[in-house]
Amino acid sequence: MKTAIIGAGFVGRAWAISFARAGHDVRIWDANPAAPHAARDFIAGILPDLEANDLLNGGTPDALLARLNPVADLAEALADVDYVQENTPERVEVKRQVFADLDQHAPETAVLASSTSALLPSSFVEHVPGRSRCLVCHPINPPYLIPAVEVCPSPWTKAETVDKAAAFLRSCGQAPLVMKREIDGFIMNRLQGALLEEAFRLVADGIAGVEDIDIGLRDGLALRWSFMGPFETIDLNAPGGVRDYAERYQGIYSGIFPSVQRRVDWTGPVMETVEATRRAKLGADQLGDRQMWRDRRLMALLAHKRRAANDIGE
Amino acid sequence: MKTAIIGAGFVGRAWAISFARAGHDVRIWDANPAAPHAARDFIAGILPDLEANDLLNGGTPDALLARLNPVADLAEALADVDYVQENTPERVEVKRQVFADLDQHAPETAVLASSTSALLPSSFVEHVPGRSRCLVCHPINPPYLIPAVEVCPSPWTKAETVDKAAAFLRSCGQAPLVMKREIDGFIMNRLQGALLEEAFRLVADGIAGVEDIDIGLRDGLALRWSFMGPFETIDLNAPGGVRDYAERYQGIYSGIFPSVQRRVDWTGPVMETVEATRRAKLGADQLGDRQMWRDRRLMALLAHKRRAANDIGE
Repeated sequence: MKTAIIGAGFVGRAWAISFARAGHDVRIWDANPAAPHAARDFIAGILPDLEANDLLNGGTPDALLARLNPVADLAEALADVDYVQENTPERVEVKRQVFADLDQHAPETAVLASSTSALLPSSFVEHVPGRSRCLVCHPINPPYLIPAVEVCPSPWTKAETVDKAAAFLRSCGQAPLVMKREIDGFIMNRLQGALLEEAFRLVADGIAGVEDIDIGLRDGLALRWSFMGPFETIDLNAPGGVRDYAERYQGIYSGIFPSVQRRVDWTGPVMETVEATRRAKLGADQLGDRQMWRDRRLMALLAHKRRAANDIGE
Repeated sequence: MKTAIIGAGFVGRAWAISFARAGHDVRIWDANPAAPHAARDFIAGILPDLEANDLLNGGTPDALLARLNPVADLAEALADVDYVQENTPERVEVKRQVFADLDQHAPETAVLASSTSALLPSSFVEHVPGRSRCLVCHPINPPYLIPAVEVCPSPWTKAETVDKAAAFLRSCGQAPLVMKREIDGFIMNRLQGALLEEAFRLVADGIAGVEDIDIGLRDGLALRWSFMGPFETIDLNAPGGVRDYAERYQGIYSGIFPSVQRRVDWTGPVMETVEATRRAKLGADQLGDRQMWRDRRLMALLAHKRRAANDIGE
């Protein structure tokens, strides 16, 4: 398929890898005419690591790069495209203008998707004549390493648009979470936020240390979640399945619930503890190196998951 | 060290593997005199899989089995032990009696740890003369596959007891989360509960399907959490680290907070949806096979994590 990346920063260039890896043509446009070329150069630097981890679907870096086409003119970038992924700044007035432009120049059949993590689609597509083909497809960065993508329709998005977007994302090896309607935080930030609120509360109340929370996830809860998710995990944690689990253990959770109705300010005194603990583990000047380490660990984890799904089953 | 497993059911026999694998002597006692022998037979059936995944620390199944000693008499099981792990039924009156018995028969220097997931240590050790050496060491099952263990002191537990328990658990390859004081749900069930409450709410409100939630974790959030935990994850998700992250994104999370002050009854109408979805994916008669699949996937994940930590760094 023919695709366009609108906005070639951190998020846009990551999408470009995912789309081109799947064999799609990718036109890259940015308000800054130098940005698409910089994005292509950045991508060229990442591809050898992906190839070494067998994460290029058997293709070569050169073949992938040949599918990336920086385009200076917006109308030209959008001519004949099937799918558009927008990655401009997270300001509602910017996105309102961009979506009006996209709708004007892209073929009627094209899906127009935004990468926004913070804005509801209704806030920036209401005025767009083709709003029924607009929606949010929000990645966890970087999407070429993390499959999950939230597909969030506006109140005016056609079901056909949602289906086309989800099918396109699946063709790229992504795992779409198809939302029934929009809600602040979408799904993943709501789930992450619920866990983080409790984590900050436990540290603020002096129950647990920052490192204890991280141990509890990386050596505990997140192991099973990383290949099953939370519902399948509890389904297998009681002899009679998920209903049995809820009947046996809901009492523990409902007993806890009243004590979590209080929010701790993450930037308040608790941040002294959180920041001191993290900076003792990792100096501020090492954050960049650690991000590269994280991405290498993510690549190795994905390669492992694919092998395990193949050898042991999904 | 000399250890005793008190209560040889699902949890007790899992601990026995962890302790014996680390080279500790393990006496196994149960109120039902047949149970320790059944536990040993059960363990013998699991060890080949652990050996195949290089999860026996280089030892052999026979050597590990030789360290497991079913003992019929409680006083004999406790003679000369250094560490006792209690795994009797989750009823406070049972544990009150058991801890009185343990304290009477075990040497003064021994640590007395309970596996309880539901009871606070203060509820069953207050009357015990040696309560200062009693605490909770709560595993995520099975502990021979999942390193995290919550170490929860009662108000009377000596700091020395906490340190000895944590050091013993580390000697077994476990990853202790050392709590500063007791709280309902300890740490991991509070974090899991926070996420599950939001998951049930999203399904009950018709925002997301059960499978979408599982995708969001297994193909999204839990990937990074499985080798970093949530605090390190957000520390790497903003250019200036964790404080920068909180300053940039707290607004999203605080905006969500008011909408999560409502609890959905997990066993209410939402369970029809959850159960129907899960049973369509996995028949009730397949739960046992799937649990064995889960444990094989866990073993492969642990082997991967060890390799990745070695090759890429921790």
